[in-house]
Amino acid sequence: MSTPAKGYAAKSAESDLALWQFERRTPRADDVAIEILYCGVCHSDLHFARDDWGMATYPVVPGHEIVGRVTAVGSEVTQYSEGDLVGVGCMVDACRQCSACNEGLENYCAQGFVMTYGSPDLHDGTLTQGGYSDSVVVSERFVVRMPEGIDLKSAAPLLCAGITTYSPLKHYGVKPGHRVGVIGMGGLGHMGVKLAKALGAEVTLFTRSQSKKAEAQRQGADHVVISTDEQQMADVTETFDFMLDTVPVQHDINPYLNALKPDGTHILVGLLEPIDPAIMGANLVFRRRVLAGSLIGGMPETQEVLDFCADNGITCDVEMIDIANINEAWERMKQGDVRYRFVIDMASIKETAAA
Amino acid sequence: MSTPAKGYAAKSAESDLALWQFERRTPRADDVAIEILYCGVCHSDLHFARDDWGMATYPVVPGHEIVGRVTAVGSEVTQYSEGDLVGVGCMVDACRQCSACNEGLENYCAQGFVMTYGSPDLHDGTLTQGGYSDSVVVSERFVVRMPEGIDLKSAAPLLCAGITTYSPLKHYGVKPGHRVGVIGMGGLGHMGVKLAKALGAEVTLFTRSQSKKAEAQRQGADHVVISTDEQQMADVTETFDFMLDTVPVQHDINPYLNALKPDGTHILVGLLEPIDPAIMGANLVFRRRVLAGSLIGGMPETQEVLDFCADNGITCDVEMIDIANINEAWERMKQGDVRYRFVIDMASIKETAAA
Ligand SMILES: [Zn+2]
Ligand SMILES: [Zn+2]
Ligand SMILES: [Zn+2]
Ligand SMILES: [Zn+2]
Repeated sequence: MSTPAKGYAAKSAESDLALWQFERRTPRADDVAIEILYCGVCHSDLHFARDDWGMATYPVVPGHEIVGRVTAVGSEVTQYSEGDLVGVGCMVDACRQCSACNEGLENYCAQGFVMTYGSPDLHDGTLTQGGYSDSVVVSERFVVRMPEGIDLKSAAPLLCAGITTYSPLKHYGVKPGHRVGVIGMGGLGHMGVKLAKALGAEVTLFTRSQSKKAEAQRQGADHVVISTDEQQMADVTETFDFMLDTVPVQHDINPYLNALKPDGTHILVGLLEPIDPAIMGANLVFRRRVLAGSLIGGMPETQEVLDFCADNGITCDVEMIDIANINEAWERMKQGDVRYRFVIDMASIKETAAA
Repeated sequence: MSTPAKGYAAKSAESDLALWQFERRTPRADDVAIEILYCGVCHSDLHFARDDWGMATYPVVPGHEIVGRVTAVGSEVTQYSEGDLVGVGCMVDACRQCSACNEGLENYCAQGFVMTYGSPDLHDGTLTQGGYSDSVVVSERFVVRMPEGIDLKSAAPLLCAGITTYSPLKHYGVKPGHRVGVIGMGGLGHMGVKLAKALGAEVTLFTRSQSKKAEAQRQGADHVVISTDEQQMADVTETFDFMLDTVPVQHDINPYLNALKPDGTHILVGLLEPIDPAIMGANLVFRRRVLAGSLIGGMPETQEVLDFCADNGITCDVEMIDIANINEAWERMKQGDVRYRFVIDMASIKETAAA
């Protein structure tokens, strides 16, 4: 049993995204069926579809920053009902039995979580398909509620960029009065600045480009350090409690470690590759510094970041696009030409027809 | 004003240690004068004297695991009096004003601490000289008390090897029921096994050599993993809460990271060099793991480890030597031929005469 759906899919690593007719499953007992209103455009979407990580499956409908409206619920669903405004992020299932799952850290599930697109469903083995689509069907455990009054368009990126930066700031203990450095000001970095600021920290944005200074201050950064300026870096030696490192490509972490106080924590959220140039062991040992990683966040914390942003008036800066312009948007995103997240207005998919 | 002292000093990076007559200062108001009874022999002594770290000063009397008896105290000393049994570790002074010093973390003093040997004294600029000597004069803040009933000989290495392993186990939160891996079984590693065990952890020793298995179990390790055996390493994937890494030379940390659970902590206490092979960012990010450093410990914690060891009957395994045999002991230590610490019986210096 299934329902027809429309999505934009990549059929190979080389092909553009194009309209694709596929099927969504009929809701199972614990499922929520959602009409998608908005979907954010994440770098991961492009990396996955282009098979940069060697794990792609085709066709793939990307998209894991989904905001929509509930259209139907399974017989055992208790949290949501038709008409509710909800969100879906990077995960749509996990083992639900391991100690991580039991703590609400489904993102660290011992079996690995089921990605919103490109993962086999745990029950029927079909490949999951993401939010560049008119609808999605997801188990209620992996659905979050849109808080009253939140701006739905700009809430979409909170489901990946927002939770990815919020989770480590909370987990590693950012508190009022702390000095937090944020490295990089893309989709993740600009959310990091806003969230660290709302948590009460004094925030410094590290960027390679002088041109981003005014913009960083507009985003709420108290200070800006040009990371290529050795004097500016020397001036912040042993200054920070935390460093939120959103840079996804290889870079030298040592100058940032030296900017941390004793017991300071450098948090990686974007760098998955070998850490090269090599970290100097002494930069950790001599000052009891910590190098830590963090991957998105669990479901309870995903709800928490939405509520936190609604309460604190925090939104992601977005540029709205029609689904028909997604390939152009990907090209611009590759070049860093977006402030700070493209969000697809999914009403636009209704008008499209298969090429 | 000063007092004649005898010590064994290196006069250059190439020279053997030899008897040297020098002067100890007359105690200042806050000083404690100590007759040295025992001094442990640490790898750092050799590295410093051979100028492996490019920071040596000559002549240098090494030694920073000092146990002795108070012979005189300055007018403002309140904690110690003549006849007390005391210890001196790796530090003899610090700024005493920074936030680290104020927290009793003199080892992370913002100005850098004054090393027990080879550092300029903060008041008169003379170079400090260490414990391969008949006496030493140290400010009482940097003196610890030998607990009632502790074995003085085997207590000496607690002042470096003991505190270096105890401090991070406590700071990063090792508790009963945790699984702790200890990497390497030299002076630090064998103390790490004993201390983690006494803190209630289930302890696994990682070693490259099958030959150390029985010995590790004799030291109290619950399990032994041969780190060069891929199957044994695979069998402990995501098993540990903490990894205490005592290896001072470059090694691949990634297999040990993979042996950590989500939120697990890999603690470096020996590796100061560039971390090569490179750490995979994904090994931190995907499991929210932490790579941390730690350097000896502060003064309150140095007292704590002595008391903890006395209370729990923990001693360092030592091999006693006469000072005249120190050069031979260094050669054996370089080859790893010591279980697990040489300790100099300083009574032997009384009989020596300058060559
Ligand atoms: Zn994403
Ligand atoms: Zn799980
Ligand atoms: Zn030492
Ligand atoms: Zn200080």
